Amino acid sequence: MASMAAILSKTPFLSQPLTKPSPISDLPFAAVSFPSKSLRRRNGSIRAGLIAPDGGKLVELIVEEPKRREKKHEAAELPRVELTTIDLQWMHVLSEGWASPLGGFMRESEFLQTLHFNSLRLDDGSVVNMSVPIVLAIDDEQKARIGESKRVALFDSDGNPVAILSDIEIYKHPKEERIARTWGTTAPGLPYVDEAITNAGNWLIGGDLEVLEPVKYNDGLDRFRLSPAELRKELEKRNADAVFAFQLRNPVHNGHALLMTDTRRRLLEMGYKNPILLLHPLGGFTKADDVPLDWRMKQHEKVLEDGVLDPETTVVSIFPSPMHYAGPTEVQWHAKARINAGANFYIVGRDPAGMGHPVEKRDLYDADHGKKVLSMAPGLERLNILPFRVAAYDKTQGKMAFFDPSRPQDFLFISGTKMRTLAKNNENPPDGFMCPGGWKVLVDYYESLTPAGNGRLPEVVPV
Amino acid sequence: MASMAAILSKTPFLSQPLTKPSPISDLPFAAVSFPSKSLRRRNGSIRAGLIAPDGGKLVELIVEEPKRREKKHEAAELPRVELTTIDLQWMHVLSEGWASPLGGFMRESEFLQTLHFNSLRLDDGSVVNMSVPIVLAIDDEQKARIGESKRVALFDSDGNPVAILSDIEIYKHPKEERIARTWGTTAPGLPYVDEAITNAGNWLIGGDLEVLEPVKYNDGLDRFRLSPAELRKELEKRNADAVFAFQLRNPVHNGHALLMTDTRRRLLEMGYKNPILLLHPLGGFTKADDVPLDWRMKQHEKVLEDGVLDPETTVVSIFPSPMHYAGPTEVQWHAKARINAGANFYIVGRDPAGMGHPVEKRDLYDADHGKKVLSMAPGLERLNILPFRVAAYDKTQGKMAFFDPSRPQDFLFISGTKMRTLAKNNENPPDGFMCPGGWKVLVDYYESLTPAGNGRLPEVVPV
Repeated sequence: MASMAAILSKTPFLSQPLTKPSPISDLPFAAVSFPSKSLRRRNGSIRAGLIAPDGGKLVELIVEEPKRREKKHEAAELPRVELTTIDLQWMHVLSEGWASPLGGFMRESEFLQTLHFNSLRLDDGSVVNMSVPIVLAIDDEQKARIGESKRVALFDSDGNPVAILSDIEIYKHPKEERIARTWGTTAPGLPYVDEAITNAGNWLIGGDLEVLEPVKYNDGLDRFRLSPAELRKELEKRNADAVFAFQLRNPVHNGHALLMTDTRRRLLEMGYKNPILLLHPLGGFTKADDVPLDWRMKQHEKVLEDGVLDPETTVVSIFPSPMHYAGPTEVQWHAKARINAGANFYIVGRDPAGMGHPVEKRDLYDADHGKKVLSMAPGLERLNILPFRVAAYDKTQGKMAFFDPSRPQDFLFISGTKMRTLAKNNENPPDGFMCPGGWKVLVDYYESLTPAGNGRLPEVVPV
Repeated sequence: MASMAAILSKTPFLSQPLTKPSPISDLPFAAVSFPSKSLRRRNGSIRAGLIAPDGGKLVELIVEEPKRREKKHEAAELPRVELTTIDLQWMHVLSEGWASPLGGFMRESEFLQTLHFNSLRLDDGSVVNMSVPIVLAIDDEQKARIGESKRVALFDSDGNPVAILSDIEIYKHPKEERIARTWGTTAPGLPYVDEAITNAGNWLIGGDLEVLEPVKYNDGLDRFRLSPAELRKELEKRNADAVFAFQLRNPVHNGHALLMTDTRRRLLEMGYKNPILLLHPLGGFTKADDVPLDWRMKQHEKVLEDGVLDPETTVVSIFPSPMHYAGPTEVQWHAKARINAGANFYIVGRDPAGMGHPVEKRDLYDADHGKKVLSMAPGLERLNILPFRVAAYDKTQGKMAFFDPSRPQDFLFISGTKMRTLAKNNENPPDGFMCPGGWKVLVDYYESLTPAGNGRLPEVVPV
């Protein structure tokens, strides 16, 4: 699983063709070498601006203030489609241009290209990455209600209009095929499938999206929800000449912190003057046993407060996407969206976006496929992929450190499951695993779940 | 199913970006318009030579005569991998460069790119299509036998060495994921999966292939098995300035013939002087209820003898690939391989490479997805895709004709199943459906299956 502590390889490698066996498949990552010519070129020409968004221009689909009233009136007259929570999260994603140049929920040609090629070809012949279908399902009844209309209004579950979809196209929702091609399995029990596909309608509706107002959740965390445009502004304000993104959906421990500070050190060594970390927890749908967003954000704040990461060179923000747990397919989406937010370096670990197989006793994905697929993905050639290997708790130093295979007995591996179990049981991890303030948040979270408030979960989990 | 009679649209369309709804998804194919600028450009610059193979150079992996003896001796000393019939068919495919620029069974980086992107990125950054994994499975025991060797010898089931695989890479065979991503389903009963994957080994072995001798089947049909190099030579000898390929795995009837002659007429209209038809039946593994290759070839010969197709402008040859029945994924392979044989036009029908869902009562693929996916596929931009719509038997004319939706009552649809049932029962189709000589071959085939030789199958199938 991707939640383990980990360390960065000595040198990053650029996404590059891999038709022959490449260093990535044969060598430990610490030994992957950065082509010296590229390195020199890079050092010689460090650019002032941020990486360009996919398609050249950041898509923003939010109606300008002066037109909102008029558009709301229009929406009231159109056939209605009610959105689920996950639909709204995708609408949020689309509205801010995380999926640039996608201009709305996918039409069939985009859906098919995503399923078959994990990418979209643009009118000018260039290719952008797009690995996860961003689609809106409707059922037979909704389809009948839409009839011949070329526009529909999207409504939230409180009955408020939130968007207009124009020049619509309705096409079949091939659920089995969508699941098989996105996840590489059709086994029952995939969290996103159970939540958002199995009971969804048999049709998909695509079109050009206009969102009536910026999406707000009013959960106290909206200040962390910077759009790609806002992030770019912030990164430019800080004069970032390299931006390295770290996607996470778990509490941050000192292994992560080691990795992130080490990445910055290496980028400085490469000649960058001001590398900025985008610490970017995922904010949309996650599976039931993941720690919820609000608790994770509290924990991340503590980690920054405790000085484990330098606030001067770190931007913490929420990535509004829902989680697919689709491994090598999904990690491309995670990387691509960060290009649109201005990141030109992407840190990838073991089994990114992976999970256990829902039926068989094994991980769903090969732990190395994620970074391999990412390094070969069409449309991500401009992004520098930074693979890292697992770090662990070094008992001799009393802290998280690079795992040294010559003395494995000195290292303690603390898995995500083990970490959660310790916190659930109100026990402490070894000193130096996580800052005490951050750990307390985790303990508090699990305590908040216990009905009796006795500090223990009803079912005590063995450590 | 793709076996129905069909007619060509009025105008072909070029493979092009489809990020916006394009004519292909909204209009009947007869109305798809060929961009006039492209048409003029094409007319203005009809090239003398054939389309270049993928990767620029046709790969040929057969050891030259003077070195064969030496290589056979080498093979005898290497760890052995025994090939199945389907493995041998793929070896044949690879050896002649149908999969150019692929130089052997896939290594993991190629396998992953095929599964996720249906394409391979080459060292120069260019992209070629590659939608179907061409892989060689081995089991634990074979893997152990290979040990640390970097080379293995491939043997046929008679114990003869047939090839050497060098610079090998052994990696996990993720069967479920391979099946899900290739077929878009994991339902039991997929013919290729049952035959070649379910019981195959848990490892895949890739490497550089050297085939010791040209592959021959000694079944009387080898004269039809022209390699891409031989086909190119033949097409150049005929001074072809356009080559249109027709993939088939069923008997040819007059609907097919109408389509093919009509395609030639349209290519002449477009300004080509000598369009040549590559009539290219698939020769590898097919499912049990398809008509076997030898009977199909007899039938195709009759069709040519009867003058339904013009031998002067038709090349009949066997495509040695096994059949996946993987619909939109596989049709890309069928098209890509024909580029390597010199074809720059590819005819695609309804539900290419499709079949019924093995479990549910529906077709496995949307009938239109094949041509849509083909038109958007990376690496096939150079190929002109020629979609066509279903033709039928016109009762008023007593022949196969364009289906005219304004008078549906005049048309009789004779499905592949119905055709087979008529032939099985030794009954005649309507006059003008198929030339009598070709029909007799079909009747003879089914008669050859009946144990009592009474001209009827034990179980009479109602028409």
